[in-house]
Parts: sequence; C-alpha cells; structure tokens
Amino acid sequence: MTETRRMKALVLNRPGDIAINEVPDPGEPGPGEVRVRVGAVGICGSDVHYYEHGRIGDFVVEAPMVLGHETAGVVEAVGAGVSGLSPGDRVAMEPGVPCDECEVCQSGRYNLCANVRFWATPPVHGSLAEYVVHPARFSYRLTDSMSLEEGALMEPLAVGVHACNRAGVKPGDTVAIVGAGTIGCVTLLAAKAFGAEQVFVSDVVTERLARAESLGATQVVDARSESLAEVVMDATGGRGVDVGFDCSGAPGAPGILLEAAARAGRVVLIGMGAQPVTVDTVAAMVKEADVFGVFRYANAYPKAIELVANGSIDVAPLITDRYRFADAVSAFEFARTPRPDTCKIMIGLE
Amino acid sequence: MTETRRMKALVLNRPGDIAINEVPDPGEPGPGEVRVRVGAVGICGSDVHYYEHGRIGDFVVEAPMVLGHETAGVVEAVGAGVSGLSPGDRVAMEPGVPCDECEVCQSGRYNLCANVRFWATPPVHGSLAEYVVHPARFSYRLTDSMSLEEGALMEPLAVGVHACNRAGVKPGDTVAIVGAGTIGCVTLLAAKAFGAEQVFVSDVVTERLARAESLGATQVVDARSESLAEVVMDATGGRGVDVGFDCSGAPGAPGILLEAAARAGRVVLIGMGAQPVTVDTVAAMVKEADVFGVFRYANAYPKAIELVANGSIDVAPLITDRYRFADAVSAFEFARTPRPDTCKIMIGLE
Amino acid sequence: MTETRRMKALVLNRPGDIAINEVPDPGEPGPGEVRVRVGAVGICGSDVHYYEHGRIGDFVVEAPMVLGHETAGVVEAVGAGVSGLSPGDRVAMEPGVPCDECEVCQSGRYNLCANVRFWATPPVHGSLAEYVVHPARFSYRLTDSMSLEEGALMEPLAVGVHACNRAGVKPGDTVAIVGAGTIGCVTLLAAKAFGAEQVFVSDVVTERLARAESLGATQVVDARSESLAEVVMDATGGRGVDVGFDCSGAPGAPGILLEAAARAGRVVLIGMGAQPVTVDTVAAMVKEADVFGVFRYANAYPKAIELVANGSIDVAPLITDRYRFADAVSAFEFARTPRPDTCKIMIGLE
Amino acid sequence: MTETRRMKALVLNRPGDIAINEVPDPGEPGPGEVRVRVGAVGICGSDVHYYEHGRIGDFVVEAPMVLGHETAGVVEAVGAGVSGLSPGDRVAMEPGVPCDECEVCQSGRYNLCANVRFWATPPVHGSLAEYVVHPARFSYRLTDSMSLEEGALMEPLAVGVHACNRAGVKPGDTVAIVGAGTIGCVTLLAAKAFGAEQVFVSDVVTERLARAESLGATQVVDARSESLAEVVMDATGGRGVDVGFDCSGAPGAPGILLEAAARAGRVVLIGMGAQPVTVDTVAAMVKEADVFGVFRYANAYPKAIELVANGSIDVAPLITDRYRFADAVSAFEFARTPRPDTCKIMIGLE
Repeated sequence: MTETRRMKALVLNRPGDIAINEVPDPGEPGPGEVRVRVGAVGICGSDVHYYEHGRIGDFVVEAPMVLGHETAGVVEAVGAGVSGLSPGDRVAMEPGVPCDECEVCQSGRYNLCANVRFWATPPVHGSLAEYVVHPARFSYRLTDSMSLEEGALMEPLAVGVHACNRAGVKPGDTVAIVGAGTIGCVTLLAAKAFGAEQVFVSDVVTERLARAESLGATQVVDARSESLAEVVMDATGGRGVDVGFDCSGAPGAPGILLEAAARAGRVVLIGMGAQPVTVDTVAAMVKEADVFGVFRYANAYPKAIELVANGSIDVAPLITDRYRFADAVSAFEFARTPRPDTCKIMIGLE
Repeated sequence: MTETRRMKALVLNRPGDIAINEVPDPGEPGPGEVRVRVGAVGICGSDVHYYEHGRIGDFVVEAPMVLGHETAGVVEAVGAGVSGLSPGDRVAMEPGVPCDECEVCQSGRYNLCANVRFWATPPVHGSLAEYVVHPARFSYRLTDSMSLEEGALMEPLAVGVHACNRAGVKPGDTVAIVGAGTIGCVTLLAAKAFGAEQVFVSDVVTERLARAESLGATQVVDARSESLAEVVMDATGGRGVDVGFDCSGAPGAPGILLEAAARAGRVVLIGMGAQPVTVDTVAAMVKEADVFGVFRYANAYPKAIELVANGSIDVAPLITDRYRFADAVSAFEFARTPRPDTCKIMIGLE
Repeated sequence: MTETRRMKALVLNRPGDIAINEVPDPGEPGPGEVRVRVGAVGICGSDVHYYEHGRIGDFVVEAPMVLGHETAGVVEAVGAGVSGLSPGDRVAMEPGVPCDECEVCQSGRYNLCANVRFWATPPVHGSLAEYVVHPARFSYRLTDSMSLEEGALMEPLAVGVHACNRAGVKPGDTVAIVGAGTIGCVTLLAAKAFGAEQVFVSDVVTERLARAESLGATQVVDARSESLAEVVMDATGGRGVDVGFDCSGAPGAPGILLEAAARAGRVVLIGMGAQPVTVDTVAAMVKEADVFGVFRYANAYPKAIELVANGSIDVAPLITDRYRFADAVSAFEFARTPRPDTCKIMIGLE
Repeated sequence: MTETRRMKALVLNRPGDIAINEVPDPGEPGPGEVRVRVGAVGICGSDVHYYEHGRIGDFVVEAPMVLGHETAGVVEAVGAGVSGLSPGDRVAMEPGVPCDECEVCQSGRYNLCANVRFWATPPVHGSLAEYVVHPARFSYRLTDSMSLEEGALMEPLAVGVHACNRAGVKPGDTVAIVGAGTIGCVTLLAAKAFGAEQVFVSDVVTERLARAESLGATQVVDARSESLAEVVMDATGGRGVDVGFDCSGAPGAPGILLEAAARAGRVVLIGMGAQPVTVDTVAAMVKEADVFGVFRYANAYPKAIELVANGSIDVAPLITDRYRFADAVSAFEFARTPRPDTCKIMIGLE
C-alpha cells in the first residue's frame, strides 16, 4: 500500500525544533502531476523564520511541517495526461499551486490567489524531502547546461524577473536597489538582463556590497555612511532613477527610493518589513511616481530559466554555502547566524 | 504704448493682504497666443493657502502676485498662427504652460515639467484679472451648452479625469474615495463617467457626504463613526475595491485605501497632506496593490469638456457660492472659514 | 444508473439535418461543477453555419452534435466544493472551459487556449438541451432584475466588452463600427457603456441602421451610398476616430477603419470573414495605428452582467424573435433566411 | 550680413540630378537652437528614392532640396537659453521637429505630428551640408567613446528602439524579422539589447543573411528556399514567436509574420511597401495577435545612444561603404545599384 511507504524529510516540529524525520512518501503522481526525486533545495529567509518563530504574519505552524520551497529535481514518474515531461527530465519547481478558479487566477495574476497551496507555508508541507509530487505545469524542464542547484535558484530569480516585469524595466533604464541579500542580488541580475544600464545598490554590509559589485552593480553605496538618494542624484545630474527596488524591508527604504526616483519613476516593494513604513507622499505625488507591490511571482519561471540558459544571467555565484541533506539541521543552524558574506545556502540531496 | 495699459486684478501683496489693484494689462497676444477677457474664476484651496501663508512647500510668494487659476473667458484677439480659435469664442484655460523641451514634456507627461509656468504659483501671476494672454493650445473652446462657470470648473474636473486615467478606471469597477471636498467630488463625477458602478465616499462632514450622495455615490461613510475599509469589505463580500482615491491628504488615508483595495487593486493619491504618511506596506504587497501619485493633469481638458458637453457629467452643482469680481476680497475672506456645505466658490467677472 | 437517464436536445445530425432528439442526460455535477436546467438559448451565427455547412474552418462536425452556446438557466444541483452557487440560482454560462495549464491560460488570456472545450464546437456538445453540467466558476449568478433571456445575451455582450477592453475605450472616445448585426450592436452598447461619445455605425441594411440608431449610435452610415471614412473625417474635422471595430468580416472593412482612424488610433477586428483582407498598410503605419484581433472573450462575463444589472446597458431590445424549445427546428429554419430587421433569435426552454 | 554667407550642400535639383552646390548658410542659432558643423551623414533609402523619383507618396520635391537626415556633428555655437550643450560637443541629431501644440505632440507621440518639419522631406532641406541649425533638444550629446559615424547611425537605430518599445520586447522573447537591410539590422540589434533570445531573420540575399548572423541572429532563413513561418514553428515546437517585425515592406510579409506569431503575439510593421497587403485576418484573430504600425520614432534617441555607449549594441559593422563629402554624388550613384553586401553608406564631412 502507498500509505506505508516512507521517506526522509526535514521537519519543523515546533519553533526551534527541526529534524530529519520519516514522513509518508507522496506516492504516485495523479493526472497532470509528476513525481520528482528532489536534488537541490535552497534555504530561504522564510524557512529560517518559520524555524525560529513558527509563524509569519497570519500563517502559523500548528503541526509538524516539512520545510523548503526552492527546489529542483529529477522526474521519476509522470501521471496521466502529462505530455511535456518524461522520467529523467531535470526540472525547477514552482512551489505554489493556485486554485485556477478565482478572479485573480483567471486574470493571470495567480500569485495573488487566496487559496494557493504554497510549499512550506502552513499547513502545506515543503519540498525538503526525498520526493515530491507536483503539477507538471509547475515543473519546468532545465536545459542540459543548467545544474540542479541553478534550478533551485530559479525560485528567487523568479522574484527578480517578476519585479522587473511589474516595473517595466527597459534597456537603458537607471535603477536603484536597496538591500544586497539574495533578493537584492537576483533583482540586480534580472534588472541587468532587462537592459538596465546604471544600477546603484545600497546595503549596510561590506561583503554584500562587494558581491553586488561583482554581479554587475555599477555603483554601490554603503548606507552606513552615504545617502543612496544623494549618490543617485549626484550621479544622474539630478534626474534620478527610472526604477527603484526595495529588497530590504527596512522602514526607511520606500522613502529613500521615492527621493531617488526620477519624475514619472517607479518604485517596487519586494522586501517585506516587520514595521509600518513612513513616507513623504507629497514628494511621490509631485513626481507622479508609481509604487508597485510585489508578492512572489506569476508566469516568471520560464523567463528565468531562459535567461540563465542563454547566458544572460549567471546565478551560480549566489551559492556561498553547501550542505548535504544529512546535514540539513546544521545548515539551518548556520542560516540563523550566517557569515557576513553568506548569500544562498544550498542543500544537495543527490 | 502697450505698457501703459492697466487692468484690475486680485493681487496678493503679502500673506493675509489681498486687494483689487491696477496691474499692467497683458497686451496683445504673441504668435500662438490668445488674449482672453476673463469671465469666471473658481477659488482653489491653493489660492486660499497662498493668501493665508504666502507659500506652499518650496513655492514662496516674494512679490505681489495675482491669484486664481481656474479660469474661463471669451477670446478677444488671436495671435499669429492661431487657427482654431476666433474672437468671441468661449474657452476654458489650462493654467500650466510647460517647457516642451524636457524629457517629461516630450514623453507626454508635461504636468511633471520642472520648468512649467503655472498661474498663481510664484513667481507666475494668476488669472483673477480682467484679461489674460495665454497659448491658444491651452485654451479649449467650450460648447454652446456650457457656461463660463462650467468652463472654470474644467480645471478641477481635469484633476479627476487625469486621476481616473492614471488608475485605469473601467466600467463596472468598484471605487472608494476618501474626502468629499471639491476634488473628491470631481473624482466621483469622473469615476462615474468612466463607468464605476459602486462608489464609496467617506468624509467627516455631514454636508459633504450629502453632496457626494446627490452626485452619485452609492454609499457614503461617515469616517467619524465608521471604518471605510470595513464598510467596503462588508459590501463587497470581502473582495475590496478596484480603485481607491485619496482626495483628503489625511495621513491615514493611504493606509485605509490599501486596506480597502482588492487584490491587484490600485490606490491613487491626489490630496496632498502636510505630514508624512505611515503605511503598512506588507498589506499592499500581499495584494500587489499599485499606488499612483497624481499631480495636476496632462491631456485631460479635452476629455473633461467632452464629458460635460455630452451630459455624462454635471459640474454645475459643485458651485455653492458666487461672488462678483468687485467682491473678490470678500470671497477670499469667506473661503478661509466657509460653511460646512461650501464646495466651489466662483467669482464672476462679466 | 446515470447513463440511462435521457433528455431532449437539439441535435445536428449532419449538415442541413437537425432535430430534437433524446440524448444522454449529463448527470450529477462533479467537484466544482453545477447542474443547470437550461432556460434560454440564443442562436448564434456559428450555430447556423454549422447547421448549413457542418464546419467552420478546421472544425468539422463528424458526429451528431448538440447545438447552442448562448445560455442561461437555473442551478439544480451543485457539486463538491462549490461555495458560491446554490440550487435555484439563475446563471449566465460562459461556454468555453480552458485547460488552465498552458501558457496563455496561466497568463490570463484563456480564450486563446488551444485545448479549450467550447460548447457546440466539434466535437463538444452544445447547450440547447434540457440540462447541462458545467464548471461553477463559468456559471455567473444573475441579479434578480435580469431575465434568463438577458442572461443568454451575456455571451454576445461579453464579446463587445472584451473588444472594448482590448481597444482601451475611454470616456469621450470617438468610435466607428462596421456592421450592425448582433455583434455590432453589443459592441455599440459596450462602447457607449465605456464612455464613447460619438459612435458612427455603418451597415448595408436599412433596418439594422435604424436599430443602431435606437441603441445609441450618434450617426449611422448607409454603406451602399456613403463612405464611412469620409463621413467620419467630415464629422471630426479630419481627426478621425479613436477606435474602429469591424463587426462585419467584410474584406474591405479593416481598410476602411484604418482610413477612418485618428493618428495613434486603434482598430479591432471582431467579425471573421471568409476571405483574406487587402489593406494599405502604409496608411496605418503613418498613423501608427494599432490593430487588435479579438477572439471570443476572457474575464468579461462579470463586467457584462454588472453593466446590465446597473442599467448601463439594455440588451433586451436585441431580441427580435422568440421560439419555444419544441419549435427549435423552426427557429433554425428561420435563422437561415431571417427578416432584414432580425437581430437575436431566442429559444425559451422554460 | 548673415544672408550672404554661403556653404556647400548636396542638392537635389530634380529627379536624377544632384550636385554639390552653394546654398545659404543657416546662420546663427536662435533661442533654444544650436549651430552644428556636420561631420557624418548616412544615406537612407528615402534619400535615394527622392533622388530617383522626386517623390515619396504625397511628398513631392518641387524645388531644389538638400538631401540627408542621418546626422552627427560638432556644436559650433549655442543660442539663447541653451544650457545642456556647449561648443565642441559632439551630437547626434534627431531630424524631425514637431509642432509641440497638437494632440499627438502633447500626448508624447510627436512622431505622428502632421506639422512636423523633417529634414529632406519636401519642402524642408536636409542635413547633407556643412552646417545646420537645429533645436538643442533634438541634438543629443555623444559619449567620448562614440564616433560621429556612430552618431549618424543613431537615426536608423532609433527606429529599431522605437519598434521594440512599441512591441514591448522583453528578455527571453522569441523574435522573427523579415528583411535584413539596414532597418532589419538595427531592429535585430535593438531586439537583442531588449533581451530577445531567439531571433529568426529572413531575407532573399545571401550576403544580408550572413550579416544578420554576424550581428546575432540565432537562425537565418533564406526566403527563396525556405518558409520563415515553418522554420519558426519547427524551432519553437509549434509555439511561434512573441514578436515579428516586418522590415521589408514586402506585400507577403505581414501574413508570414502573423502565421509565425504565437498566441497573443505581436507583429510590428516598419518597412513601407509600395503595394497594398493581403492578409488572412482570421488567423490573426484566433491568436488575438496585435499589429502595430511604426513611423519613425519618438523619445528613442537617448536610449539608442545609451545602448551604444554602454556596449549593448555595436552599430559600427553596419557601415559598409564610406565616401568623402566631395564625392557625395558618387555615393548616391553607388547607392542606386549597391553591392549585395552593402548595408549603410556613410558620408564623412570632416
């Protein structure tokens, strides 16, 4: 019987308590689904946050839950009606499955679906396990040139691609990014791939600024000693940037980006902060700046994969730390207090 | 000599000191210009603000300045090269003349021009005078069915039309408006003309709510005792509004409108507040709400006139108080402490 | 057993041969589905075309097929997981069910889904039957003020709404429509609801022009004796229309509408013609006109229903001929050679 | 007196008759203008067409006219009020000066201005002369890294940039281009800079296909022996291209590109043909393809310059033939019957 099959998974039992446990194997794929042997899973800030606090906003972990949602693996079996994938195919997996039926789903903005089932968002189990079963349509084949680690990185990169889509980044645009963590870095990479010419990146960690520079930032700003808005205005002759991205969630970031924005500029909020934000809206209005919220991504995985496959984007340098699945608990321990130069921690299951 | 001609105008000499004075007549129209005998001028909040405080933000009145910028009148003479207007034509006048040369001008968003010359914004004289000379292209012919008072109201209505354009209001949209002053009312009228079906309007003045209702609001909310966001969510089954407009400038308004917004909703900021705004951006991001700043208007006068000419919008009820030009000082005195039911104060020069 | 239940339906056995036959009852609704007792079905040109020719393009009727797809009825039972509908609810039914999985489905343009199952498009049975089972999400509740006949008319009206969405019709726009059949009429109604001010409609049938006028066309053009483009240019002082809709499929229509378009205007092709179209593209290019193809609709039913529910649109006058279900064969006979003033033929099943 | 100054210019006296003549020097720059010593002028197909036929459509050469409009040079003097340019600055010059006053000008689409004055479009003289006087705002400073020849190439490149803007080319898009002349090449370069991944280019000249390949086309199609639409569909697994550009003006091109387009794809018409085009619109409609006309460009020069300055685009390989100004007549002679591998013919005035 299927129910008796077991597999290993990294389970969050309660805040602060994780372990590799035996959990039910997901079994055979149903119609339209694939069964995937998981090969690489990146650790996201939200995983660490659930580990430490057991909740994010209204999402509370009330029962043991498998963590992980940045995932790539190898197709082991395909369900009825699946035509585009075969066993052996290597895939990046989009972790959210929307309802397909509500207003936002039907209009193409399925990331806003109130009924989405998203890996490692309670009460839905995540993917840091030996096997997952998932809709084939959210499992995207990787090119031969891409590793499974790169496949797992398609999840954060999809955030950057979606943000650039929302902002309408165009070739020659000038861009400012607050925050050079993983999301700041993927946004930087995506913005460059969308043609951004000048990209200013600010952070308060020296090592992160160095990484941003190595990834293509044309100017980095140490926010401990410099004002991003002033640097931008100096460098652009008072014009400002076409697009600003907040990848920090810091309360002051939206205001700084509105100050740095050009007339008719756009500001995109990606990083979620714990505190309310205080903004001088008059400045924004006089410029008719647009502010766009970003939540995850929709229709972004295929572009993210193409951009890596064709060499426009190199995500590999984002991986700074690697752990084997057997050491996943150590990986999470490390993730709580990483080095200053830590970017993405990747867990390999192969 | 032209310079010796004089005319009467309402001059702000210093904060708190206005008078009808003799000032130089603007003379004959140059190429592309028209000379207009002013017929009706509405008093705007900014006029009153300059009267009381002598400044708005960085714009400081440092020399006597003619007030007024909501203007309609009769063409008296046309300059060289003017083909679309003739003496006797009645026109509504767009008060800002952009530079035509900068990046935003060339891209069609001339309202953001840093070099715009806008009536009654220091150091540019306003239109509350017997005559003005103005570019013909910013002087729009009224239909025979429209009065000069209605013509003067095209200025605030252009704000509402521009805001609806920015928000992309479509037939059937659900809308919420904070603030039922003049700008709240023109936004309400414009939104209805754009096809908005349900329109919620909140204010803290009973008489303003009554006016909003008479102008087509489907539900009014007394913000002293009710929560707009709760009313909206109750009435829409938890969906929220497609578009929210802040016409109040109140610090809490953007947050309320983000709370009331549907997923993928839009919030437009029109009212400028004196204080910074505090917002829970996470709520906005989870919905991927867009926030659009609005500053005056561009390319909106022709549509505003058409909507009134074809009967889609009736602006006449906005005029609650009328003064003759000779009593303009009294009009401004009244405007400082109006009745609760005062909306637009109109000064007639004919 | 479910399979033994039978119901009556209008079946196309082969080209030219239709009859009310007994066919299998669709049975109980599955998860997410509703069972609906059909109340009203409009006859569409495509139904008549299948009746006469047995095919439209690549879609060939190879087995007996139930006709009809413009449908409203009363919910009789709801399947598991259906929360928004209950037995007794009256609904308009969107006839196409997309796959939800392909690129266009996920991006919100599900009308372009290559795997859509659309009523009365071979090999999918239509709705001109006593009962249908259909996804609840494509069954939209009607307000109490709307009749089932009006509900059936939501299908063609959705085409008009979608076309206006594609064209971005805005208040005050000037519009030209070629063809005043049912699609021309719903496009006219939708354009007026979107705020179109001047609407020119051309046709070659006097009675159709009279109907267009009664529905709100501001100027009708008898294409047998007048040139639409010339009339438009005369009436608009040489400016042209913001948007042109071809609802005729006539080979000359796109060219006429490009000629009648303003600079930066848009032309929307709705009517499908049998023959290739010959166009002077240089004229279009000098104006930078956009040409948008339209195929059915997506995300349009809710708006269509709202616009009728709130009184913006009155579709009832489109129904010119009514038949009882028992006389459906006669209705189709009549539809082959209708009167000049025939618009929509409606079949009542109650 | 200014009027007595003379300079040399290439003058079209009548069809087939050109010569370097003495013509009036344009004199000193007026307010907002610059006087530029011309350094490089590219020969455009329209120049050759006027030379051979004396007309293009409704534009008829009725008096001797200076040819040339693809221009770069060195600022010699600046008029009153010019702040962004100084003598010695090297500039690329946008050849059309719109009226700034009409509806399309004010809305940012100034390329559609009916009153535009465009170099070498009768009756306006062109720029193939020692000096020109031109608005400073249409004279864009080149970076030190750019040559004047590259500056002159900003004119055709602006067409490619504008076309990609109109089409909304995004990273990862698949693109097809019909025609590999100069415009096909700049469109290819722009599309790559906008992030296009796969770019198919078809032509009927072997040498042009070779150039397209060297410029980054991922697949070239010899239209004499292969079908572009079939090649595209084979290579994309039946999906088709996101965007197709016709840079040929061939009557069959729009139809081919509609056939090659993906569902919801876009086709942009850049090349102007002499003959009407015959299209199967049904195919376009079923896909809801959008067709965009393109006429010259607006707001595109700054982006074009940035893309070359930052190395995203290398235009230098487009220049295949160089002539000194003294040999300009020979250059035009050659342009009438160029080699198969001729792309851009550049005339140097330094």
